[in-house]
Amino acid sequence: MIAKVAPDLISEVVEQAFAAKQASRALATLSTAHKNQILEQIEVALEEHSAQILAANAEDAALAKVLARRGEMSQALYQRLVLTPEKLRGMIAGVRAVAALPDPVGHILARTLLDEGLVLEKVSCPLGLLAVIFESRPDAITQITTLAIKSGNAVILKGGSEVEHTMRATLTAIHSALGVDLPPAAVMGVYGREAIATLLALDKTIDLIIPRGSNALVQHIQKNTLIPVLGHADGVCHVYIDAAANLDMAIAIALDSKVQYPAACNAAETLLVHAAVTETLLPRLAASLADAGVRIRGCPLTNGLLPAYALDSVAEEEWHTEYSDRVVAIRVVDNLDAALEHIDRYGSHHTDAIVTADAATAQRFLNEVDSANVFHNCSTRFADGYRYGFGAEVGISTSKLHARGPVGLDGLVTYKYKLTGSGQVVKDYSGPAARKFLHKAL
Amino acid sequence: MIAKVAPDLISEVVEQAFAAKQASRALATLSTAHKNQILEQIEVALEEHSAQILAANAEDAALAKVLARRGEMSQALYQRLVLTPEKLRGMIAGVRAVAALPDPVGHILARTLLDEGLVLEKVSCPLGLLAVIFESRPDAITQITTLAIKSGNAVILKGGSEVEHTMRATLTAIHSALGVDLPPAAVMGVYGREAIATLLALDKTIDLIIPRGSNALVQHIQKNTLIPVLGHADGVCHVYIDAAANLDMAIAIALDSKVQYPAACNAAETLLVHAAVTETLLPRLAASLADAGVRIRGCPLTNGLLPAYALDSVAEEEWHTEYSDRVVAIRVVDNLDAALEHIDRYGSHHTDAIVTADAATAQRFLNEVDSANVFHNCSTRFADGYRYGFGAEVGISTSKLHARGPVGLDGLVTYKYKLTGSGQVVKDYSGPAARKFLHKAL
Repeated sequence: MIAKVAPDLISEVVEQAFAAKQASRALATLSTAHKNQILEQIEVALEEHSAQILAANAEDAALAKVLARRGEMSQALYQRLVLTPEKLRGMIAGVRAVAALPDPVGHILARTLLDEGLVLEKVSCPLGLLAVIFESRPDAITQITTLAIKSGNAVILKGGSEVEHTMRATLTAIHSALGVDLPPAAVMGVYGREAIATLLALDKTIDLIIPRGSNALVQHIQKNTLIPVLGHADGVCHVYIDAAANLDMAIAIALDSKVQYPAACNAAETLLVHAAVTETLLPRLAASLADAGVRIRGCPLTNGLLPAYALDSVAEEEWHTEYSDRVVAIRVVDNLDAALEHIDRYGSHHTDAIVTADAATAQRFLNEVDSANVFHNCSTRFADGYRYGFGAEVGISTSKLHARGPVGLDGLVTYKYKLTGSGQVVKDYSGPAARKFLHKAL
Repeated sequence: MIAKVAPDLISEVVEQAFAAKQASRALATLSTAHKNQILEQIEVALEEHSAQILAANAEDAALAKVLARRGEMSQALYQRLVLTPEKLRGMIAGVRAVAALPDPVGHILARTLLDEGLVLEKVSCPLGLLAVIFESRPDAITQITTLAIKSGNAVILKGGSEVEHTMRATLTAIHSALGVDLPPAAVMGVYGREAIATLLALDKTIDLIIPRGSNALVQHIQKNTLIPVLGHADGVCHVYIDAAANLDMAIAIALDSKVQYPAACNAAETLLVHAAVTETLLPRLAASLADAGVRIRGCPLTNGLLPAYALDSVAEEEWHTEYSDRVVAIRVVDNLDAALEHIDRYGSHHTDAIVTADAATAQRFLNEVDSANVFHNCSTRFADGYRYGFGAEVGISTSKLHARGPVGLDGLVTYKYKLTGSGQVVKDYSGPAARKFLHKAL
């Protein structure tokens, strides 16, 4: 991967990453008060630099507008790039909100007396160095920077070229606020598309990569690095409407899961309907969806029951599709097992919901669906760090290791074992006259 | 990677992995009592099949002996392969010990009232499908199988060809004990070196890989899969003897860390000695190490102070070396910062210890060394799941994510979020008349 990139750029990016890692050591030992003070200084600096940041964003936006008009940039990406004074105030308010969160570092997760004078502590500590690779969103810069500082991690920011002026102006503000105790390398900006391959190869230096962007970006990163990646490529979420569902509730939940924000990763893509309720439910459901401007794509059974809509049939591969739009697929299933089988085969293990009044069926669904978020009688759209009460969201993870589902500040720390003794050696705990461990929880 | 392997074998291994994943669903929902009953049945079956297992192992050992004599297999690998009746009894006792451990599945880690009638639970659950790739050790088969069953995971076992007869006989015993509720695919044996590449490519099916073998094996696996790997390639551990160290204690800890079991990953490879104590400490330390049959390799300063030993100097790259033998490197450092710098540059973030009577120095070391295990005034050899009181050890991880340091049964589970509502939709929590979340911990 690296071989394709000019050696000068590689060595520059490697040097930048090493400097950021070095800075992570200073960050790791800052007190909570000190970190909060830096966050307050960042808040003030962003306010003071508001005019410069908006001017820089206007430059980016002018370029992007041309690209969008030519069809070389999506409208969605363009909309996310443009910063208004109100959006900037929201970004600054976000910095304040992170400062107010509890510090995730230094918690004693367990303490055990191994033997007299030999105490084991499991203590939460920062991961070290994060790298964020993002597209378009200026808010990613301040959000991830403040979450990183609060959790004692250094961070490398690699934004797309479309957001470069905005990022430079924002980092100028942030660097002016770091004070004397934290080098600017603690929040390191890296530029140029070629830098990505170099960052992805630095698995001894970077501890976690957080991609913020398209499914294609996330998948590219997941497939091309040994560094752990926090995030999800796609959200193919399901609502299963059981035979024992309250039909009014089922329609309300299906509708909210699809249309409340169709582009969200926790929006539903497929509705699975138990065969016993198709005749009563499907006509009403289809009418509600049509009223909300949702296009339906059905299995042959669904389409046969909804002749008035002249629906397209869903091809096998399409059940994997994240429409991210006002489109929904509907499939009739014979029973819970068929629903579980469909979700397992076509889903992305993100969020899946059941609507049923039968408690045993609900329990089986919640236990057996292998997804980060499994819901009973509520909308898939609740799968979100803010709605879960985490205060801030680092991202939503469909990985099973480390952090799963919506991830708050806790996802940016690890732990270490600290063992404090008074000269103990292992030799004394082996052989015929071995000392016995106490293993007493303290 | 896959392209080099015959298509038939690939499809066979893929089918086996799919069957194991299917079986993981049955395992995930077994009750604690049911899992313990299966473990008891495995214990009995292993006892009943002891003669067959020992006979099969004798076949493996006879072949291995020829290879070892020809130098095509290391003595260490050969020793680990050979099963005595006593070692087999130890394996069976290990099954009983795992049955006695608390079930890591189904713990409610957090419960939050999001709103009236909308309750969020974070619940521990199995990972799904584990794959163990191991060399030589017959005990890996029973140990990992029982840990997998206890934690509700299915497991694929891929042993080296040297252990194939032993593994087939052991799996015959285990399969006879699974009963009617668990298909044999829940504990799936896979054979043939070519199967490894296929397993490593199944990142949508296998949830965790646990390598048990040489550093080369572990590194090969880490570099060639997108599946998370639980383990560590090397253990380059340090003991730093500070200016304020009690010298008797320092010598005892250095000696134990090196010689108590030199092949262990938590044995020390390098001793860092503060310049202020070299003249008093080094001659005594060298004499103690020499008495224990340890060969010293020093930095120029060390070698200059120990002229009687005519020591070899350590080259730059050698500081990374895991000797796994009665060899130790010694380096004189000017201060704590130089020790921290050395450990960060050359260590493997496994286990590092400081010997000092100065509390502030100890605190800095424990906070700033970025290793899974950081010790004060005790031997590095304490870094171990049994010594930590975990009951059983899955392995030692130098990864920072998910599980770090010695990993017990908890390392084989993840969690999911279960949200139970009564018809709630997200639409009601947005807009001007939005309902407010309660976010009340229950």
